[in-house]
Amino acid sequence: MTKVFLKKQIQNRVLLGHPWIFGNEVAEIKGEVVPGDIVDVHTHQGSFLGRGYINPQSQILVRLLTRDKSEEINGEFFYRRLLKCWQYRQKLGYVENCRLVFGEADDLPALVIDKFNDYFVLQTLALGMEKWKHAIVDALNRIFSPKGIYERNDVPVRELEGMEQQKGFLSAPFDTNIIINENGLQFHVDIVNGQKTGYFLDQQDNRREIRQIVKEANVLEAFCYTGTFSCHAGYYGAKSVLGLDISEHAVETARRNAALNNLQDVCKFQAVNAFDQLKQYTREDRKFDVVILDPPAFTKSRENIRKAVTGYKEINLRGMKLLDKGGFLVTASCTNLVSPELFLETIDAAARDAKRRLRQVTFQTQAKDHPILRNIENTTYLKFLIVEIA
Amino acid sequence: MTKVFLKKQIQNRVLLGHPWIFGNEVAEIKGEVVPGDIVDVHTHQGSFLGRGYINPQSQILVRLLTRDKSEEINGEFFYRRLLKCWQYRQKLGYVENCRLVFGEADDLPALVIDKFNDYFVLQTLALGMEKWKHAIVDALNRIFSPKGIYERNDVPVRELEGMEQQKGFLSAPFDTNIIINENGLQFHVDIVNGQKTGYFLDQQDNRREIRQIVKEANVLEAFCYTGTFSCHAGYYGAKSVLGLDISEHAVETARRNAALNNLQDVCKFQAVNAFDQLKQYTREDRKFDVVILDPPAFTKSRENIRKAVTGYKEINLRGMKLLDKGGFLVTASCTNLVSPELFLETIDAAARDAKRRLRQVTFQTQAKDHPILRNIENTTYLKFLIVEIA
Repeated sequence: MTKVFLKKQIQNRVLLGHPWIFGNEVAEIKGEVVPGDIVDVHTHQGSFLGRGYINPQSQILVRLLTRDKSEEINGEFFYRRLLKCWQYRQKLGYVENCRLVFGEADDLPALVIDKFNDYFVLQTLALGMEKWKHAIVDALNRIFSPKGIYERNDVPVRELEGMEQQKGFLSAPFDTNIIINENGLQFHVDIVNGQKTGYFLDQQDNRREIRQIVKEANVLEAFCYTGTFSCHAGYYGAKSVLGLDISEHAVETARRNAALNNLQDVCKFQAVNAFDQLKQYTREDRKFDVVILDPPAFTKSRENIRKAVTGYKEINLRGMKLLDKGGFLVTASCTNLVSPELFLETIDAAARDAKRRLRQVTFQTQAKDHPILRNIENTTYLKFLIVEIA
Repeated sequence: MTKVFLKKQIQNRVLLGHPWIFGNEVAEIKGEVVPGDIVDVHTHQGSFLGRGYINPQSQILVRLLTRDKSEEINGEFFYRRLLKCWQYRQKLGYVENCRLVFGEADDLPALVIDKFNDYFVLQTLALGMEKWKHAIVDALNRIFSPKGIYERNDVPVRELEGMEQQKGFLSAPFDTNIIINENGLQFHVDIVNGQKTGYFLDQQDNRREIRQIVKEANVLEAFCYTGTFSCHAGYYGAKSVLGLDISEHAVETARRNAALNNLQDVCKFQAVNAFDQLKQYTREDRKFDVVILDPPAFTKSRENIRKAVTGYKEINLRGMKLLDKGGFLVTASCTNLVSPELFLETIDAAARDAKRRLRQVTFQTQAKDHPILRNIENTTYLKFLIVEIA
């Protein structure tokens, strides 16, 4: 097997458990380099450090899959790992839907699998993982006997790995418009055309957190996408819910979701630019009891963090202005580039500008099926905050 | 009324909503200064800023009660405020027990009231609040018609205000050994002799968080006090629970709490030094599935933060060593002097020394009835973390 030897001075991060090895951390490679193949990684002194897949076309030259020298990377390896992932989710109480595999945090770098009851949606985001796609599908079949498996590899990041974007069935074709249960509600999931893997499971624990504060409330949700927070608000007893999203298709699905839960009289949706609409409501001095903001990531690059922070500040400022004392702001940020501390600072800055004093009710991260590896920076990507206007 | 004028350069914090005014921030006082009396606070320019109580013997010269010029401080004021506090807790879903008043975070500086069903325990930690004690008791009587009110003012901080420590009835005497319901369990509360107000309500939401991970587990709790986490573990299906606390009296109560919930066969307790015992278990290479660490604050002064951090690191290191891969560490810190970030760094440092890799399951703060005012630093005093040994 090809052997990769690290430079002496930059192994500490890797030694402490980080699975990524960058090209500039490597001193020498002995053997042939076939993109996507499994290689052994050794320290400068020559001792075995781990085994992973290599791709010279990627900035991340090697991603480790194991640190156990006796562990071969083969079909059984992926079966064992997927089984372990499932056992962990079951341990935490997940039954029907969960992120079954969350890449690095499950020691399966660049692999994402979402479980929607009997259906599975998969992303292989690095060449070395792509090569094992069929082993992974076999493992899913062995563990779950699924009704269907679909790949949503229509993700630009694959191009950095020299791969094409693609999507399609990894099982016999099936009806990809499915319905899932969450927190006592039901939601349409469009596996083929929905964002990311079709549904944002990462907020499923957070959606429950609005239960108390929306009772009898007039609720506004901006960036409502397919209306999952909005429907939860209706389900938990809101007087009225208005969801805004720029996508006509998302709003249509949101309406179908409301109807599916018999909430069509409470939950209304509009296809509008939420940024503009919040501003308009401020001008009209309209007020709500609860404002929910769950915007898309405003940036995907480190260079644009400032811009993202400005975006978060602006929408939160606008959201706060629609609330009087005693109202609640529910606000999230889904980019790992904005740290929890920076997010809170941004909200505080918005509060100063909006002349609102905030009392924190809840501050948490993504759902537990998206675990956070403490030694990998920024796996805390989702921030979810509820504050009262005090 | 006596008027306090602030210096020009240090009003911003106060203007932004902080209720404390330090002696060195005051330019001039017009009128008589009677310790504990209500005064009006004005900016350097002379405009009204707020109304609060003064105590020249305290480092905090004035604590503001209101910023509304038309709002008089009288019995009705305290009635309105307490009613608002109760409505807020009800809004968040609290029914039986809660921290009814959490000082500054409820705009009632230096006042703490815990509600244990029909019983109330009160602390007035500043002279200016002490003076309104009977108005506060009247308000409690009006709102709740309580079965009993007790003051637990046996708190050293009162001496900084020139007051004595004291405890006693603020209602007709009643049996101060009560039983409360929490998360489906029952607990003995000793209002007179229990720590602080008799019971730590701040972990009541967090205690539910161990529900999944303790199933079928062998659980160790160090610093178990009266065994509330331990009993929750037993109730949620642990195979065995061992609680350690240095106090014989606490351990005795823990045993009574276990018996009260019919968990005496599952939950065992020992009166030992938990620090030493954890070390001893490491030497014996004993292992548990779940280790819970809920130690007292290792410091109450800014000077000793380093020492506290060392203490947290040490016990967490010891706790981690008793866990194998797949085990869970449940760990808390209750001092506001250790920030959430510093706490996480400390846990990470312990993990490096213990050679354990951690996956975060839950990271949160005190229960919602202890709200966090975002403009008052360090109201996030409780940190509660669950990690898996990955």
